[in-house]
Amino acid sequence: MEGKILLRYIFFLFFTVLLILFSISTLPSPPSNTAEEVVDTYKNRIQSRKTVLLKKPTNPTRRRRHSADVPRHPLDPLTITELNKVQKIIQRHYYSLNKDYALHSVALEEPEKKVVLAWNKGDPLPPRKAAVVARASGASHVLTVDLQGSGEVTRHETGHLSGYPTMTVEDMTSATWAPLASADFNRTVVERGVDLADLACLPISTGWFGKSEEKRRLIKVQCYSLKDTANFYMRPIEGLTVLVDLDTKEVVQITDKGKNIPIPSAANTDYRFAAQNSYQRLLNPISIEQPKGPSFTIEDNHLVKWANWEFHLKPDPRAGVIISRAMVRDPGTGEMRNVMYKGLTSELFVPYMDPTDAWYFKTYMDAGEYGFGLQAMPLEPLNDCPRNAYYMDGVFAAADGTPYVRSNMVCVFESYGGDIGWRHSESPITGMEIREVRPKVTLVVRMAASVANYDYIVDWEFQTDGLIRIKVGLSGILMVKGTPYANMNQINNQENLYGTLLSENVIGVIHDHYITFYLDMDVDGSDNSFVKVNLQREYTSPGESPRMSYLKAVRNVAKTEKDAQIKLKLYDPSEFHVINPTKKTRVGNPVGYKVVPGGTAANLLDPNDPPQKRGAFTNNQIWVTPYNESEQWAGGLFAYQNHGEDTLQVWSNRDRAIENKDIVVWYTLGFHHIPCQEDFPIMPTVSSSFDLKPVNFFESNPILNIPPNFENELPNCKSDASA
Amino acid sequence: MEGKILLRYIFFLFFTVLLILFSISTLPSPPSNTAEEVVDTYKNRIQSRKTVLLKKPTNPTRRRRHSADVPRHPLDPLTITELNKVQKIIQRHYYSLNKDYALHSVALEEPEKKVVLAWNKGDPLPPRKAAVVARASGASHVLTVDLQGSGEVTRHETGHLSGYPTMTVEDMTSATWAPLASADFNRTVVERGVDLADLACLPISTGWFGKSEEKRRLIKVQCYSLKDTANFYMRPIEGLTVLVDLDTKEVVQITDKGKNIPIPSAANTDYRFAAQNSYQRLLNPISIEQPKGPSFTIEDNHLVKWANWEFHLKPDPRAGVIISRAMVRDPGTGEMRNVMYKGLTSELFVPYMDPTDAWYFKTYMDAGEYGFGLQAMPLEPLNDCPRNAYYMDGVFAAADGTPYVRSNMVCVFESYGGDIGWRHSESPITGMEIREVRPKVTLVVRMAASVANYDYIVDWEFQTDGLIRIKVGLSGILMVKGTPYANMNQINNQENLYGTLLSENVIGVIHDHYITFYLDMDVDGSDNSFVKVNLQREYTSPGESPRMSYLKAVRNVAKTEKDAQIKLKLYDPSEFHVINPTKKTRVGNPVGYKVVPGGTAANLLDPNDPPQKRGAFTNNQIWVTPYNESEQWAGGLFAYQNHGEDTLQVWSNRDRAIENKDIVVWYTLGFHHIPCQEDFPIMPTVSSSFDLKPVNFFESNPILNIPPNFENELPNCKSDASA
Repeated sequence: MEGKILLRYIFFLFFTVLLILFSISTLPSPPSNTAEEVVDTYKNRIQSRKTVLLKKPTNPTRRRRHSADVPRHPLDPLTITELNKVQKIIQRHYYSLNKDYALHSVALEEPEKKVVLAWNKGDPLPPRKAAVVARASGASHVLTVDLQGSGEVTRHETGHLSGYPTMTVEDMTSATWAPLASADFNRTVVERGVDLADLACLPISTGWFGKSEEKRRLIKVQCYSLKDTANFYMRPIEGLTVLVDLDTKEVVQITDKGKNIPIPSAANTDYRFAAQNSYQRLLNPISIEQPKGPSFTIEDNHLVKWANWEFHLKPDPRAGVIISRAMVRDPGTGEMRNVMYKGLTSELFVPYMDPTDAWYFKTYMDAGEYGFGLQAMPLEPLNDCPRNAYYMDGVFAAADGTPYVRSNMVCVFESYGGDIGWRHSESPITGMEIREVRPKVTLVVRMAASVANYDYIVDWEFQTDGLIRIKVGLSGILMVKGTPYANMNQINNQENLYGTLLSENVIGVIHDHYITFYLDMDVDGSDNSFVKVNLQREYTSPGESPRMSYLKAVRNVAKTEKDAQIKLKLYDPSEFHVINPTKKTRVGNPVGYKVVPGGTAANLLDPNDPPQKRGAFTNNQIWVTPYNESEQWAGGLFAYQNHGEDTLQVWSNRDRAIENKDIVVWYTLGFHHIPCQEDFPIMPTVSSSFDLKPVNFFESNPILNIPPNFENELPNCKSDASA
Repeated sequence: MEGKILLRYIFFLFFTVLLILFSISTLPSPPSNTAEEVVDTYKNRIQSRKTVLLKKPTNPTRRRRHSADVPRHPLDPLTITELNKVQKIIQRHYYSLNKDYALHSVALEEPEKKVVLAWNKGDPLPPRKAAVVARASGASHVLTVDLQGSGEVTRHETGHLSGYPTMTVEDMTSATWAPLASADFNRTVVERGVDLADLACLPISTGWFGKSEEKRRLIKVQCYSLKDTANFYMRPIEGLTVLVDLDTKEVVQITDKGKNIPIPSAANTDYRFAAQNSYQRLLNPISIEQPKGPSFTIEDNHLVKWANWEFHLKPDPRAGVIISRAMVRDPGTGEMRNVMYKGLTSELFVPYMDPTDAWYFKTYMDAGEYGFGLQAMPLEPLNDCPRNAYYMDGVFAAADGTPYVRSNMVCVFESYGGDIGWRHSESPITGMEIREVRPKVTLVVRMAASVANYDYIVDWEFQTDGLIRIKVGLSGILMVKGTPYANMNQINNQENLYGTLLSENVIGVIHDHYITFYLDMDVDGSDNSFVKVNLQREYTSPGESPRMSYLKAVRNVAKTEKDAQIKLKLYDPSEFHVINPTKKTRVGNPVGYKVVPGGTAANLLDPNDPPQKRGAFTNNQIWVTPYNESEQWAGGLFAYQNHGEDTLQVWSNRDRAIENKDIVVWYTLGFHHIPCQEDFPIMPTVSSSFDLKPVNFFESNPILNIPPNFENELPNCKSDASA
């Protein structure tokens, strides 16, 4: 019997890979020689896994064909044609080395910055290259593939420090089924009362905690019961952890410390609309309407032009979204002025605050370990993004190099929620009848990454006044812990739950979220300086003034990296300006943009704690480094299981000169999250943001002369789109 | 000649009062015996002062008649009928005392809290009373007027500590013209090159800096040139300060220390649409549309019902907006549950950071000195608030007790900007096809106070998930300082500008904004406790875990007020819960709401600095006091020129018990503002907010079962409203 189950699950594994392949545009031919049993299993799983949505598909966006895509801009991502070529070249390469391999990352190797800056529309594209990270024979390789002519591998590096590349999707899915090869595991699951057919398992990055975890690519797998709910996350088989070798899929160790902990009930955990017995219709329909259509255009698939902004936008398997060459129009001269060469989500760090066996290692680095873009699922039109949104697809490569399309991965839309761009009324004091108000409309670039349970909504929001707001919303499902307790009255005060009792037998474990952004600012040119404008309390001299104290702005230019390792201080506040020291406004202020902090929760783990060594890029909220092509991923290129030798902290500690240089600013948005019952079974979105804001960049308010809304220009709407 | 000018300006004063009267619904009969000259002056001033808007009036909201209003709820503001009655009773009262008087505040004296809580719709209203603050014979009086029967004054108190009542609008306008009575002043103005006809003056509260300012109600007047711009704020006659006795209108002192400082140019300062030579049309029309209308109703003029929320809303001359009896529906039981008994903007404190003669005293308390509601001007439909907004009028009393209507003072609207209420997609890891997303729609209550130059946009935003966001946007016009400098290259490094050179001869002076909110939380009942949930770093014992450190939530109930004097700490973070200690969730957590800080700029002035003694309510970001009817205005009932004996700091230092009591939470939003050129000549809005958020208040996510958007329910719009 056990042998049969094993067999079924091997087929399962097969099915899962199949399902992933299904979602890609170039479908492989179906397997030809499978037994009827497999087909049955397959069907059953389709039934149980594939959620049938009762509602009709909403606003089906046109599925774009990408086979004919060609790159038009030096920063355009690799096309399907190029990815196919990379696949062939890599195949040839490893064939010649006589090695099996898996591709962990295939992305454009961007041309040198100066080449991109010199490029103008109409110029021939600089040579197209692919940056590839591969694993072969237990080693990680960094390759450059030159796509000119017949193509070749022009760089092949190994010998990196500790750590492994981002997992492939195939790594993750195969890891979740690996434990089923263990009879011990299967027995334990059944003993815990879970039917193996109801099992859902997650691949949990191990972090790095010491020598026993060296020289082996490891992952921990924990499992849940899918019975009676799609929200298996709320039904942990607590304390059961399977250590799996990611390369061999071998089960290295099984720990089971939760035998006394019941599987929490499925009741009230399913969040799907179709699963609700009833629903609350609280509101009449409401929508952002633009009868003349949106005000932005997207040229050549990637160049977004809106109002006074222009930038290049592309999906990325690791960062999710990359904004490049962001420029804003000067209302005085009409010229497009550089603001940011490149901005992206560099790394995430999500340490859970529970040191016990099944939890201590949960210290995720979602970009470097899982691929923030790989986890960005198709957006749901009308709900993830409003009407008139434009959807952009991601084109990525599977582990074998086959390109696939992640449709609707990013959306672009204009937002208006009733906010005010600027206003002034004259008051009763002057008696002048002035009421001038301008509404605030913004452009949002959005993606939503579902890193297993959690959903991260990342918005790049552009304002006409020159401000860029970078906002992260957290939603999705908590990572919860099973407990024997059903009520707080069973718990004595001394006991540490490591979180909040959310429901019977369910604890929401306390955790932090840190999202670190890479911001290669180029304020009116590449060479910039970082200035701390400190607000200092000054005292007046006796007799000087009836006032004793006031605040004075004192400017300090950061000379080297250590001057710009910024821990925010509420009681010793500063503004943080990125200025162009060679360019001044008409009245002589250096032109600049400032980083306006928000989401300032600070990391409080001990800096010598193993996870914090790896997450050391969160030791400061702001850092500034000199531009260096190889320093883009704050937790290291190989973040998985690394020891922390390749983090932003290490780079910054070199203390290089940063004054009047091409500099990169790093900002970390932080959240402390003590879960509460409202987060069960799915969390209302919590957001934080920080801003990049012009500071003496423009000569004056750049939206002084925009018109207000007029009644006769607004839409005329009826209540039914189908009418 | 001078006498003639004086005469003209006396008429001016008259005109100004007239203009104010004009804006009220019950128009007084026009003055009958004025000379032709007055009429001419009047006409001229109308021409120059009254900005003719070239655009047609947009979406003219129906002007409501208020003469027939009757109160329907114990908290309803005084009606016109009631105000008229108050006027008569007060007239009689002071006639019997044989005294002249001016009314500085007339508002409902709210019934005792327990009476309001016991009241149900349909019950007779508790006795209606008016709380009146008057000045008579140089003294301030606090009166209660009982409106039952023929009515009478039932309380008449004097003998308060230092300080004076909020200025009347008549105080402010008359002060601005008082300097014209001084030949010295007029000569100086002309010598500075400003035609007296172009003069615009502002009444600037003096603060309190010592004995010389005692026993006399004083104000400082500073003036500007209106020539060639409506934005006179950018054209200061720098250094000219006139000290005026507010009661006698006598010029006490003229200081003129700016003779070498030119009046900055008018060029590029006018922000009015009609004054632009050209305009930038950046965007296609965009609008929030609700073809079936908004989802809220307003019962009996003041009771707002929306989605799962219900609250009482009224305009107030001092606070601006008062939200009372905010209740949210429990999705499980269907009952309306109390969240907040009363919330309002208690006080503002805006210290400028310049200790020199013409600036040191600028330490405004905009609610207590100017009346935050008195300065809240009519909102501009389609621009201040989107389509489908409901506008509420304020009904206030002039200094003589005559009621007047401030139309469209508050708006209520639903906002949807494309945000997400909650979401989850299943990731490629599990292969489940789930994409569940719910859009976020909120209800916004907005007012915008124009305290002379600055505009404060105050939003109370209600979310269906139970969160209340209180947001303050700053826009309007900077208070600027004239300077001889036209370029930074003229200034040596040692010189302190106290701000930023924004344009030739214009400095934007550094300042802070603090907005302190009164939040009488009643979480499921009046008796609540305040709990600090501190996230503390814990260390594991050797061998306990591969982890060294983690964060633990430690709960501390505040016993007395000093336990709840909270200075926020980034590196020793806490959550701040208001809980009901007698009510627990199903699994035993105390039900609560938490204060989620934002806009955390801290006041850094020396606590012994005279302005900071008065603004001592900003010494902490959070305070908690036991409910006390008389403690509502954080800077004291008589904030004007007070010495700081009646502030929140003083009350809180009594250190009263606050555990399991009816408690009031105070939160201060803070902004440091170093101006930049983008703020010239009018500032793009800068916003900050804090939240009141349910924490184990609901058993689970209260919006689990709301539906997503469906295509066929959204509006069908054409591009022209006039079509």
